[in-house]
Parts: sequence; C-alpha cells; structure tokens
Amino acid sequence: MEFDLIARIRDRAPGRADVVLGIGDDAALLQVPPGMQLVVAMDTLNAGVHFPVATAPADIGWKALAVNLSDLAAMGAQPAWCTLSLSLPEAGAAFVDGFLDGFLELAARHDVSLVGGDTTRGPLSVCVTMHGLVEPGRALRRAGAGVGDDVWVTGTPGDAAAALAALQAGAAVDRSLRARLDRPTPRVAAGRALAGVASACIDVSDGLLADLGHICAASGVGACIELDRLPASPALSRFKPDLRWPWQATGGDDYELCFTAPAAQRETVVDALAATGEIAATRIGRIDASTGVRAQCPDGTAWTPAMPGYRHF
Amino acid sequence: MEFDLIARIRDRAPGRADVVLGIGDDAALLQVPPGMQLVVAMDTLNAGVHFPVATAPADIGWKALAVNLSDLAAMGAQPAWCTLSLSLPEAGAAFVDGFLDGFLELAARHDVSLVGGDTTRGPLSVCVTMHGLVEPGRALRRAGAGVGDDVWVTGTPGDAAAALAALQAGAAVDRSLRARLDRPTPRVAAGRALAGVASACIDVSDGLLADLGHICAASGVGACIELDRLPASPALSRFKPDLRWPWQATGGDDYELCFTAPAAQRETVVDALAATGEIAATRIGRIDASTGVRAQCPDGTAWTPAMPGYRHF
Repeated sequence: MEFDLIARIRDRAPGRADVVLGIGDDAALLQVPPGMQLVVAMDTLNAGVHFPVATAPADIGWKALAVNLSDLAAMGAQPAWCTLSLSLPEAGAAFVDGFLDGFLELAARHDVSLVGGDTTRGPLSVCVTMHGLVEPGRALRRAGAGVGDDVWVTGTPGDAAAALAALQAGAAVDRSLRARLDRPTPRVAAGRALAGVASACIDVSDGLLADLGHICAASGVGACIELDRLPASPALSRFKPDLRWPWQATGGDDYELCFTAPAAQRETVVDALAATGEIAATRIGRIDASTGVRAQCPDGTAWTPAMPGYRHF
Repeated sequence: MEFDLIARIRDRAPGRADVVLGIGDDAALLQVPPGMQLVVAMDTLNAGVHFPVATAPADIGWKALAVNLSDLAAMGAQPAWCTLSLSLPEAGAAFVDGFLDGFLELAARHDVSLVGGDTTRGPLSVCVTMHGLVEPGRALRRAGAGVGDDVWVTGTPGDAAAALAALQAGAAVDRSLRARLDRPTPRVAAGRALAGVASACIDVSDGLLADLGHICAASGVGACIELDRLPASPALSRFKPDLRWPWQATGGDDYELCFTAPAAQRETVVDALAATGEIAATRIGRIDASTGVRAQCPDGTAWTPAMPGYRHF
C-alpha cells in the first residue's frame, strides 16, 4: 500500500537543514543558498535493462543513486537533495527495506536528503532525480574541450564491463570487479575539484570512446586515445590487452569521469585530485582538430572496437 | 536509439530565460530567483495502472505533466522547469512525437521548460519531476486545517471516475467526462490565488474523502462533508445521487484542489478564485475536532462508501 511504503521510507530518511518540508506533502520545499545555481539530473534504471534481474535490492538502491550522483559529479556540482520514484510489481516491504539500505548508505556519504517522490505498482523500475548546487560559471560541461587539450580519465574504466561479461557467460566473477558493477563510486569530490580546472567533462556510463565522443561533438573537436595508456585495475590487468581493451574503451557502467584540460594545467589537475584523497586520473590521449574519436594501438595502428558503446535501443 | 530520441525532444522544447543549460549535458543548470523557495514534486504513470493501455500518446503526455503540475498547484507554487524520464518498449518516434504534442502543449500553457531527463528501454512508463517556486511562508501544506474551518473543493469532482467506470464497463463514454479523465486541468492559478489564504490544501488524485483524510491526519483534526453539497458537472448531474456520490466522494483522478479556510475568509476565497478567471470552489463541509472524515446524507445519516479511495497496491 502506497502510504505504508511512504511512511517506511520517510521514517528512515534524514533531513538537511535546508529542507523546509520533506517527504509527506504534495511536494518538497527547499531552500536554495543565495548565489548558487541549481543542478538537476534524472536517471531511470529498469530491471533486466540497467541491472541484472537477480541483483540484490541494496545494490539496486546504491546504483540508482550512484548513477545520478555521477551526473552531478560530471557537472562539478555539490549534491544536496533527491526524489525517488519506485515502481514495484507488488508491495514488498522486504525489497524496500533492502533497497533503502543501499540507497541511504550512499546518500549519507554525500549528505544527500531524500525529500519526496512516489511509489507505484508496475514492473520493477527506479527513477531518481538528483539536485545539486554549483557556483555560477564553474559548472563543467561537455562543450569546452580545445584542440591540444589532454584527455584524462579517473580510476580504472572497464571493470564493470568485465564483471558483466563474466556474469553473462555464466563464469565466476572476480569480487572486486563485481563490486564495481553493483556499487559504482560516483566521483563527486573529483568533480568538485575539477570545477574551474577541466575544460570539459562527462561521466563514463556508455563507454569511454562513446562518452568522449559526446564531449567532442559538443565541443566541435576530435580526439585520439592511446590504448596502452588506459589504466587497468589489478583484477583487469590479469587479462590480455586484446580482451581488456574493449572493456576499457567501450564498456559502460564504470561511472568514472572523462575530462579534458589544457596541457598547462597538468600539475593543477594532479594536485586538485590528490587533495580530495578520492581518486587519481590518468592522461590517455589528446584533443585534436579532427572529427570523432580514434583509438590507437601501441604500434600506432588504428583500433576498431567491435561494439562502439552501449546502445539503449 | 536514446540519442536520436533526446535530439527529437530537445528540438521541440523551448527554454525559459532562467535555464542556464537545458537538455543535452549530464545535468541541467537553473537559476533560482533570489528570495524564492524551490518546490519539487515527482510522479510516475505506468501503462495499465495510471492510464488505460489504449490511451492516445498525446493524452499520456498531457496527463503525465498535469498530475505533476497539480502537485505544485496544491502547494500554491508557480511552475518553472521539469525533467522527463520515458521508458519505452521500443524506439517509437511516432509515440514520442504524439506524447510531446500533449506534454508540450500543457507545458507551454504554464511557461514550463523541459530541461532534462532520459529515455530508456522498458515497459511503458513516464516519470516527471516538476520544479516550481513559492514565496517563503506562503506554501500551502496538508497541515494547517483548524477546527471550524470550511472545507472547499474546486470544480466538479467525480467526472474522471464516471468516465473510467463507463470505460471499464465497455459502455459509451460522455465526451466531456472522457476529457476530464484524459486531459485533467491542473488548478495552478487557483493554487497561486489560495497561497496565503487557505489553511491547508491537497489535490484530489486518490478521491475526495481519502485526500481530505490526508489533510485531517496532517492537521490533527477531523471533517464532515455533506454529500448534497458536492458540485456536479452537467454530465454528472444526469446520474442519480446514489450512482454519482461514490464517484464524487471517492473517485480519483480529477486533480481538483480540496482546501480548508477559516469561515471569516469566505469572501476572500471566492474573490481570489474569481480573479483568476479559472475555476470557482464550493463549500462542502467543515473541519471538526473528531478523527477521520465522515460523509453525511441529506437526511443527516452517515454514508459509507463501498470503496474508500484509490489504493495503489
């Protein structure tokens, strides 16, 4: 029953001081700090499309919030409030409790208040709208990459795709890779540190080449990345390059940040990220005056991925 | 394909001056006017649950925005921006075009900009997050009804329920009733007029008695409504009271406003609504010191509905 589920959610959702009115009325009332711009992202996860049907409820909750926090990270914004719409095939208190375990654990880490939304009957689906704040003029955009800029990526992309490939093949899945698929870490502190430093930014949800392609299209430039510069996690390093390059270059779901910055900013980038204590970034290529994104093998030949990136339809 | 659909949506969505960055990046950037509070509502409509599967795409688009605008109306807020998450079984350009016809027609009437969201593959489902603005201290809430206050309702509740009943019985549906089910009118101007005047307010989505019950629960009061005071549309007036009272008192989906105000404010309420030129309201009962909501027949006896209100599960 909707009202019981809402009470169940409300009782567990802590509030920030800037939440004037939270869960339980027709809408939430929020106090936006003067001088800040509002940043809004919205992402839906459907069972069987965005996560395997057998995913643990707590992992679904974590991931639903993580992908939205990642969008705010890619804008250089500070997360503040979210709303949640949960469609459930049946009123499952156990599912909701598990879902909230993961959702609220990640929300607490980023001081995010859940302030509203709804629960409906329908196929399992989770929609989150994430609200954050950014200083005027400091938001990171896809547009802004300039010819000669370095291309960077945080962390080690490809882990989530490797886990998904193993799952789909029915093979054993390395625990650290599986954690990257089920509980991605949104790079919020890194995004904040890069605001005002990076020239363009996006989060890697569809695959590194595809998402860098969005930066290039929005910026009116091209890019070339060097495959042997792609950072690999210890678990991924065990695979041969031929096997891991497709995961690293075209696998989705890692939620690392891909960004560009002028070469003169290299030290600033490294220092800004080091100051967060969260994650480092690796230079993987360069923006040029071409069109589109090319990947280059260590011997200088062009590399063509079998699958250019995740396609939603 | 997600990117084509997004381009299709972006090309048709006009922008307000306070939209710093709209559709096409990782998140939208919005300029909240100084001194205003942010109001956020989120509602999902699932096919077969919230609208008949055969509903025209344009009507689905209209209704998805209308129910969210109605939540803002119930808060006394001025709508500003929305995000849209559309889950589609397949990439249907024709569906999206029709959906946008209805969605954007209603958005234009209220100067609402569509600023972001996503499209995903999944069972047909529409989630909208609506953002509006309200002066601090003037938002209408469910809490605030006082003993002795009048209970009012705008327009003529019951029309949508009558249309749905005819549809479900396979009977011919009056055109004016059907329009109320498919294209409800969010009472935005009425809500703005009542901000600072009404003591409590809610929109009627689950049924008049059920939604008035939410006001009473939040306000710590009870209420009694008189069935023969319930306003009926010309189309509904043709039905005998025994048939139409359940629709009027317990039918959902009308999206009228139910609100309370001190008796001393009767003239103010009537004048404020008349000034909008949008809709009038009718006094239908009184807040008292009891618990829960009672409905009274013309002979003074208590009336018990067969169905107390829409249940989501």
